[in-house]
Amino acid sequence: MSGKTVFVTGGAGYIGSHSVVELLNAGYEVIAIDNFTNCVGDEDGTAPSLKRVEKITGKTITFYKCDMLDGARLTKIFKQHHIDCVIHFASMKAVGESMEIPLMYYKNNLIGTINLLEAMESVGCYQLVFSSTCCVYGDPETLPITEDHPTGNVTNVYGRTKYFIEEMLKDLSNSNEKWNIIALRYFNPVGAHPSGLIGEDPTKEFTNLMPYIAQVALKKKPYVTIFGNDYDTVDGTGVRDYIHVMDLAAGHVAALKKLLNDHLYYKTYNLGTGNPVSVQQLVNIFSQVTGQEVVYVVKPRRDGDIVAMYADGQLAKNDLGWECKFSLERMCEDFWRWQTMNPNGYRDENQVSGKSTTNGSSTKNTPEIISSNGNGHSV
Amino acid sequence: MSGKTVFVTGGAGYIGSHSVVELLNAGYEVIAIDNFTNCVGDEDGTAPSLKRVEKITGKTITFYKCDMLDGARLTKIFKQHHIDCVIHFASMKAVGESMEIPLMYYKNNLIGTINLLEAMESVGCYQLVFSSTCCVYGDPETLPITEDHPTGNVTNVYGRTKYFIEEMLKDLSNSNEKWNIIALRYFNPVGAHPSGLIGEDPTKEFTNLMPYIAQVALKKKPYVTIFGNDYDTVDGTGVRDYIHVMDLAAGHVAALKKLLNDHLYYKTYNLGTGNPVSVQQLVNIFSQVTGQEVVYVVKPRRDGDIVAMYADGQLAKNDLGWECKFSLERMCEDFWRWQTMNPNGYRDENQVSGKSTTNGSSTKNTPEIISSNGNGHSV
Repeated sequence: MSGKTVFVTGGAGYIGSHSVVELLNAGYEVIAIDNFTNCVGDEDGTAPSLKRVEKITGKTITFYKCDMLDGARLTKIFKQHHIDCVIHFASMKAVGESMEIPLMYYKNNLIGTINLLEAMESVGCYQLVFSSTCCVYGDPETLPITEDHPTGNVTNVYGRTKYFIEEMLKDLSNSNEKWNIIALRYFNPVGAHPSGLIGEDPTKEFTNLMPYIAQVALKKKPYVTIFGNDYDTVDGTGVRDYIHVMDLAAGHVAALKKLLNDHLYYKTYNLGTGNPVSVQQLVNIFSQVTGQEVVYVVKPRRDGDIVAMYADGQLAKNDLGWECKFSLERMCEDFWRWQTMNPNGYRDENQVSGKSTTNGSSTKNTPEIISSNGNGHSV
Repeated sequence: MSGKTVFVTGGAGYIGSHSVVELLNAGYEVIAIDNFTNCVGDEDGTAPSLKRVEKITGKTITFYKCDMLDGARLTKIFKQHHIDCVIHFASMKAVGESMEIPLMYYKNNLIGTINLLEAMESVGCYQLVFSSTCCVYGDPETLPITEDHPTGNVTNVYGRTKYFIEEMLKDLSNSNEKWNIIALRYFNPVGAHPSGLIGEDPTKEFTNLMPYIAQVALKKKPYVTIFGNDYDTVDGTGVRDYIHVMDLAAGHVAALKKLLNDHLYYKTYNLGTGNPVSVQQLVNIFSQVTGQEVVYVVKPRRDGDIVAMYADGQLAKNDLGWECKFSLERMCEDFWRWQTMNPNGYRDENQVSGKSTTNGSSTKNTPEIISSNGNGHSV
């Protein structure tokens, strides 16, 4: 896909930055934006995560610090470049927070997306990959979850914003056949790039399970809480479908290739491994792989928690020619490498570029990647 | 409710203007805004419909021409006044058009509402009556429709924007108990104020049934099309729940009174008569009441048309102490008076203020209302 330019919203975030690695490796030009709500930004408006992506890939990224609520600016950027297609990652994404400040979530996620769609229309760009979530299925009626499972009975505001956007995109494609849209419904992305240079770096609380487990392993948090061990699952604890973020990133490249080759109008794909893993299993495997103790405490079930969610990934496999390569062990290993090399995430630039801390981390596969001669000037 | 100030969005529109009459008559102060998307505005930024409301009531209205996409302006207006409560009518509302230009509908209806909610929060105003629609029920599973009928399987974009807003409002009330919100789900508003001074004046195509029937009765359109007369209904044609716009307006005053007396958090009420009326029946009664021929042509069923929709209105009756007073005949009679007194709607000011055309219209009940000494300076 040499010569094709992808516009990436939320490009400096966790899934965004890993996907940009895969896009650059696949030969795409990348223009990325971020407002640094979910990730660290430098004072000069550059993105530390994307500087590291340039190191990893040896390629350059055009980056703008841009808030998607500024529709005029978005449209201006679209008019300044030739953009072939868009991947829309940008989103407020914390489930708990979304219940506390719903208006902020609706504002940012819905208006940001409407502004993006208007900017795209203004330059005649109709190719879009949208980051959706398995939350759109609500509490699943059947497992594994196929793409034709009903959507809409969403249990949280974050997921509701994604569901609303899916409906908007469907309506848009029905109204104008030029639109060519894939919505990717993510299950539970974990892990990090094998270099240890980029990974998940929450700007707010550690609400996702693997970052929290890692904090416990690092003795920064006292214990992991497991809510309920009396569910009807393999060991009584809740079950999820963890997917390595690099598999997820590859899924985006596969989806983009599909869009550029076929006219799908509007189509949804699950991105998951299809492999159900319990919270207890994840804690155990993380502990084994890293050699660290992970203290956990079992507490009663929480209202509203979904017992089990995992994907049927057959459709993405068939249509996109994509499947997951990385094991659960590898997800833990890669996450731990990132975590130990960067105990403060992107916040301490002195610890990057191979001058990593090495307390217990595996560093295999990393040196040759770290030595890539990234030219960070445009990030 | 003397001394209470209501902020009315979309106040110059069909339902808005009729509700403002009832609000003023009930002793509320009214601050209204409109962007003149769905109604005629004068070049000087004033609203002809609200000038007539001032004539009808003898009271004054504070009016701003304001687009709700301009959130800063909205907030500024909220800060300039003491506002006790809000009725949010403003909306793009044409079902067919919403399928053709969905992004415009999502943009205007969702962003407008988000801006309004932010403006309200900025001044600590949490009392809201929201204009929703029976469209949120989708194709009904049971009839008559009660408020606990499932929502969300909406068949058009317009209704989807209303459903999304209902969900946002519910989330908002769950996140902050200060919010006190009623969503009123309208069935099919028709008719006009008995004065004949205000009524429905579509700025675009005549897509609603009664205005269309009236155009046929006036020989401006050749015939009414009835899509399908082989449904399982009283006479084979589709069935709806027509409600006189003055009953609907009274429902808003009742809802506002309820909000100001009780803390409901978030509650929905149907506003309908509960009386199913077929398209054929409406055509027949309109013809009888007006003495005009209404030519109609039966064509095959249309995909996506809902066979029958009518309300169970018991909840509003019990909780709000409100019920419908006006018959179907009266809906037709009042609509026809408006139509014949104002063949060009609000477009020809020479025909207003009692100097009406009188081709076939009943004018009973009107002279004393028309003579009200409205002081229009602030409209």
